[in-house]
Amino acid sequence: MASAKAGAITVFGVPGMTEFRRDLMVRAHHRKASHGTMNDAKNNESAGNFFEDFKLGQEIVHATPRTVTVGDVSLFTALYGSRFAVQSSDAFAHSIGYPTAPIDDMLTFHIVLGKTVPDISRNAIANLGYADMRFLKPVYPGDTLSTTTEIIGLKENSNRKNGTVYVRSTGRNQRGEPVLSFSRWVMVKKRDESAPAPEPHVPELIAEVEPSRLGHALPSLTLGAYDYALAGSSKRWSNYKVGDKIDHVDGQTIEEAEHQLATRLFQNTARVHFNQHIESQGRFKRRIVYGGHVISIARALSFNGLANAFHLAAINGGRHVAPSFAGDTIYAWSEVTDKAELPGRNDMGALRLRLFAVKDRNCADFPGQKADGSYEDGVVLDLDCWVALPR
Amino acid sequence: MASAKAGAITVFGVPGMTEFRRDLMVRAHHRKASHGTMNDAKNNESAGNFFEDFKLGQEIVHATPRTVTVGDVSLFTALYGSRFAVQSSDAFAHSIGYPTAPIDDMLTFHIVLGKTVPDISRNAIANLGYADMRFLKPVYPGDTLSTTTEIIGLKENSNRKNGTVYVRSTGRNQRGEPVLSFSRWVMVKKRDESAPAPEPHVPELIAEVEPSRLGHALPSLTLGAYDYALAGSSKRWSNYKVGDKIDHVDGQTIEEAEHQLATRLFQNTARVHFNQHIESQGRFKRRIVYGGHVISIARALSFNGLANAFHLAAINGGRHVAPSFAGDTIYAWSEVTDKAELPGRNDMGALRLRLFAVKDRNCADFPGQKADGSYEDGVVLDLDCWVALPR
Amino acid sequence: MASAKAGAITVFGVPGMTEFRRDLMVRAHHRKASHGTMNDAKNNESAGNFFEDFKLGQEIVHATPRTVTVGDVSLFTALYGSRFAVQSSDAFAHSIGYPTAPIDDMLTFHIVLGKTVPDISRNAIANLGYADMRFLKPVYPGDTLSTTTEIIGLKENSNRKNGTVYVRSTGRNQRGEPVLSFSRWVMVKKRDESAPAPEPHVPELIAEVEPSRLGHALPSLTLGAYDYALAGSSKRWSNYKVGDKIDHVDGQTIEEAEHQLATRLFQNTARVHFNQHIESQGRFKRRIVYGGHVISIARALSFNGLANAFHLAAINGGRHVAPSFAGDTIYAWSEVTDKAELPGRNDMGALRLRLFAVKDRNCADFPGQKADGSYEDGVVLDLDCWVALPR
Repeated sequence: MASAKAGAITVFGVPGMTEFRRDLMVRAHHRKASHGTMNDAKNNESAGNFFEDFKLGQEIVHATPRTVTVGDVSLFTALYGSRFAVQSSDAFAHSIGYPTAPIDDMLTFHIVLGKTVPDISRNAIANLGYADMRFLKPVYPGDTLSTTTEIIGLKENSNRKNGTVYVRSTGRNQRGEPVLSFSRWVMVKKRDESAPAPEPHVPELIAEVEPSRLGHALPSLTLGAYDYALAGSSKRWSNYKVGDKIDHVDGQTIEEAEHQLATRLFQNTARVHFNQHIESQGRFKRRIVYGGHVISIARALSFNGLANAFHLAAINGGRHVAPSFAGDTIYAWSEVTDKAELPGRNDMGALRLRLFAVKDRNCADFPGQKADGSYEDGVVLDLDCWVALPR
Repeated sequence: MASAKAGAITVFGVPGMTEFRRDLMVRAHHRKASHGTMNDAKNNESAGNFFEDFKLGQEIVHATPRTVTVGDVSLFTALYGSRFAVQSSDAFAHSIGYPTAPIDDMLTFHIVLGKTVPDISRNAIANLGYADMRFLKPVYPGDTLSTTTEIIGLKENSNRKNGTVYVRSTGRNQRGEPVLSFSRWVMVKKRDESAPAPEPHVPELIAEVEPSRLGHALPSLTLGAYDYALAGSSKRWSNYKVGDKIDHVDGQTIEEAEHQLATRLFQNTARVHFNQHIESQGRFKRRIVYGGHVISIARALSFNGLANAFHLAAINGGRHVAPSFAGDTIYAWSEVTDKAELPGRNDMGALRLRLFAVKDRNCADFPGQKADGSYEDGVVLDLDCWVALPR
Repeated sequence: MASAKAGAITVFGVPGMTEFRRDLMVRAHHRKASHGTMNDAKNNESAGNFFEDFKLGQEIVHATPRTVTVGDVSLFTALYGSRFAVQSSDAFAHSIGYPTAPIDDMLTFHIVLGKTVPDISRNAIANLGYADMRFLKPVYPGDTLSTTTEIIGLKENSNRKNGTVYVRSTGRNQRGEPVLSFSRWVMVKKRDESAPAPEPHVPELIAEVEPSRLGHALPSLTLGAYDYALAGSSKRWSNYKVGDKIDHVDGQTIEEAEHQLATRLFQNTARVHFNQHIESQGRFKRRIVYGGHVISIARALSFNGLANAFHLAAINGGRHVAPSFAGDTIYAWSEVTDKAELPGRNDMGALRLRLFAVKDRNCADFPGQKADGSYEDGVVLDLDCWVALPR
């Protein structure tokens, strides 16, 4: 991990399962410890890992490599309706220097994350946060993705019933090249409350991705050929300024079949999304929509107003403010919170966005966070990310 | 545009949003005027265009070119269950002279039309009609489709609140070759009722596609290799006669997730299909199924009785008689209204069909239009089209 | 047909439509009779065949060859969430000797079976059983599948209203190589009760696929390169023993849109799955989920505990114990009932499994069949199959 900067880390969790810890300050050292494979420690492989199964420094190879195909791209379009020209058209992508259309960055995220669920978060009480998520290489149909995770921190909670596991996960293509990397911390149950606590280690996490570290997943491009009419907007990086608020206008109603199809497509096995038999007995009486589904809806809606921001370069952090369910209609809006040049290139620039998703309420009045830190009615997502677009 | 013939143009619109004008006689001249790009005129690009934003002769380049893939073909099959052998099998298609299986003509239509929605019909009160829709070139997986539209007519309504916009839209592949072309007219709201009315121009529309203009999307074929058993029927062009009525037998119940997946796959952003939050306050209290979804269901069902009619050559016009909603079960039947030879070929012939879709009622008694012009209970679609099949 | 062995044939039918005949002993001779094409006998091609339309020895070429693509693979993943590494990753499959990832065996089954529905089971009262189902060749994206069926037995029921039709169906690729073959028997209505009964012929069916006949669809492999961490488990053939019971842990709730998308993807036209207008008047008041959908859910869930059992080699028989409907949550568990070596190879072995699917009840207590032959509450599927995995 490169330079680390302590600061406000907004957390990003499974909605409605526990309180989230916001503005978490984590400054412990990351220490390498004994390596081992997860498989050895498993008694029942399908039951997933409990807090005491994780060891600092451990490297986990997650199951089921996945070849991404044009079939996945079509399903992604059917699920979210995304309209960014670079990802939609081989001809457009080729015209500016891509070999062919890269897949949507969120599709990469979903697949890489999905692999970690059986090992990392099956027995999670909460996804507490993400940090320093960077896209490192474009992914094309035909590439095969797999994920490994290093355990970078462990801290048992004072109740001795569970603890926080800090991980660094990396998705790689079939050539072993990293395509996506992110830190994440989850609260995981102990199998046996009397199991001894590990020595606590809380890693220093990166609160925001500095612009100097952005842009690795953007190849060399020839933007002179970029057709703004085909892309849907003439607005470039230079047309946005910090403080701009953009209503993404449309709304999408979520259906059970849709979020289930999506989440299975990503081979994400978190049961709260699929099992009405269990969830009918739970707090919400129904299945919870995978948080990533809401992010992808918001990202697709953001085409309205940000049509040229075709690349998601990084996610600094985020928060699922409230759970979403089938029947909810998701709207979105963005605020430009920062602008940056990208290292070594003068063709593309980065915008830092605070992307809000809001349910059953249109975003003409930009519903967001209140002065006291609470959120306006309907807000379900508060995401801090960097997008890239032509200058 | 080639020869024009005045006649009965059946209209084809967004159901339930206004009355349709049928047997519309349009004979005004089509006059070229100043060209311009739409993008210049837009204040809020995502808000779409209003009546006063359109200019006669204007050419609009629509956003988001789309590479069609085998993923789209699979989704199309999953959505409609189509069974025409030429589109289902590369081996079958190749055996009769196609390089590989072409995509379903309706998939071409949906994608080409979908691109026009944000610019043309976002603020439409009604899709009043289509005319002279011709398929001009087969589309194969890997082709990239984009759409341009020329404004060919404008006429403000006497209420001064809205007006009719007449357009000619053309879908092209990555080589710029037209694959589909059609005229369409929509009633669009004015942004500002006091905006001055343009000089009225109503173009001369073509009421039916003459057989001499059919068949451009059919390559040279070697039909001696056409396997009628694999195709599902021995009935050829010569086995049908004018007046034949064909019950397509099966019924398909529509689910919300299905029509939403379909409509997003086509990158069609018309909000009435996706936004239950708004539609729950609307006239029907629920989302309206995209009219093209119903056409595709009816077309797929028509395999029962028309298994060799693998190519949709043209749509003369049509009418969405009533809206469809999730939960409706769609049946279909056809009447052969004309037969024609195709120019320059003696292997394939064309049948003109009146294809009816009917909801929650089987079509054994062929429910259609009554003598007074009204429709029998349950009819939702009355489509006038040309299909092609081996002679 | 090779060696036949009389024994317990568990039947496998359309749920809830009639009683199933279990432990059926069928020993009649299979006799060739006059061949003919089905098409000649059809008056209304779309109405399907009735009992008196079938002739012993008849060969039926089913309609609509189907090119399988990566789009189908993606949809299959989205529908079932399968995680077997060989089918999920081209890189993984290639590493052990496949040219590329083969498609899931159940996808082959669904497509091959789907083609037979319009000709064989459209007018079926019940799918009484399957026997001797063997996978004979791997199927890859790009292959085109078609199906033929031989009528191998006919027996009118004493009520003279219907009869049993015994068939042997074979799916073949574009080179004519068999990829899947199975026997099946269905009870079919007569069109005309006064039609004369054919001479009864009940073929000798094979109650179980002997291990010596397994493994044809497995190519030569180099399993030294098989990565057990990527595959998700270190458990090989040698780690399982007869009598092992495996809880597959997770549950999947079925949605209407999902089973409809699946069944149409397979071009299976059985109307009970699609037509709420008719089914609302039926015994269950709603659509019945395609039985194969439940098998595929159970097979995908079986990854939990059987992660290396990537190949379904054969189905000996099975029983749909009860129908499934949208809203049901499907769980699964397996018992290892036999182990066998595969002929001519020492790298892979076979496990015979009794795979149960259970609805709205988790399988920690292994709900199955009771001593009196009845089933415990919730059981919907009892499938007898052979899977293959590394030794």
